[in-house]
Amino acid sequence: MSADKDEDPRMYGIKSRIRVVPDFPKPGIMFQDITTLLLDSKAFKDAIDLFVERYKDRNISVVAGIEARGFIFGPPIALAIGAKFVPLRKPGKLPGEVISEDYVLEYGKDCLQMHIGAVQPEERALVVDDLIATGGTLCAAMNLLERVGAEVVECACVIELPDLKGRERLKGKPLYVLVESH
Amino acid sequence: MSADKDEDPRMYGIKSRIRVVPDFPKPGIMFQDITTLLLDSKAFKDAIDLFVERYKDRNISVVAGIEARGFIFGPPIALAIGAKFVPLRKPGKLPGEVISEDYVLEYGKDCLQMHIGAVQPEERALVVDDLIATGGTLCAAMNLLERVGAEVVECACVIELPDLKGRERLKGKPLYVLVESH
Repeated sequence: MSADKDEDPRMYGIKSRIRVVPDFPKPGIMFQDITTLLLDSKAFKDAIDLFVERYKDRNISVVAGIEARGFIFGPPIALAIGAKFVPLRKPGKLPGEVISEDYVLEYGKDCLQMHIGAVQPEERALVVDDLIATGGTLCAAMNLLERVGAEVVECACVIELPDLKGRERLKGKPLYVLVESH
Repeated sequence: MSADKDEDPRMYGIKSRIRVVPDFPKPGIMFQDITTLLLDSKAFKDAIDLFVERYKDRNISVVAGIEARGFIFGPPIALAIGAKFVPLRKPGKLPGEVISEDYVLEYGKDCLQMHIGAVQPEERALVVDDLIATGGTLCAAMNLLERVGAEVVECACVIELPDLKGRERLKGKPLYVLVESH
């Protein structure tokens, strides 16, 4: 489910602050740049507030953020709802023992890792990233959490590219986004 | 200047949650792992609160966070003090036009980039990272901000390795840290 843009005027401000950069990182890709959203502290706060309002009473104990832009949105949500923050990182970045998930993404192959012991069985987790494209990264993130016995409550992104149908790859888990971009 | 560990009991909780991982990313390095701090939502919040209490009345309009762990600590500070958040990233990650600074770090060479237009002349900036080792990364970050005419008010890190004397490389700019590790 996506937020209803007709009901909350904060969505307009958020969407207006996202810059589209053509042909990045390669020709044909219309890159959705959230760094311009971060320059407007009011719009950035609105985005975080919308997530917090949605998740504060959902008994979530883990916010898992995907490197690197998920690190920008995940921690403020985790702090506000009193959850731990668990970074899901590229290979070779986490210093402790890890589990790994390989995945295919919009332009190439990649791998996500999570520290063993960071998440306990039965914990309720929220997965956060800036954007869902084909859904491969979010799917890998959910797999990491589920492999250690956690329950993924939802995935939350600032932007969805609905034309890429990533939502359909999330194994039936709900997805919440603030903005759609076509 | 570093925080006085004898005065604020929150410092103990923060320090106790930082894990030291020997021989990462290479033999001989005692890696200071802040991911274990993030698992304790109270200690993580204490760390952010300590920064916010220090910077909330300093007229700071820019919080610049260094990829990738500076993205975890910078945004909550920026949101709390009403500043913009500016990510300083590795080459090839920022989609818009950038300026670059090469630098030498504890184990290798690297480069930081900042979006042109993200920071205006005369803005007052705080630079945030998880750790200061030799100070090379923070120095590159300060150079990026100063090249566009901003004033760096201070650098803020969770952890300092004082034996590496990074503080002395910061061109006289103040450094505030929560924890020292020897």
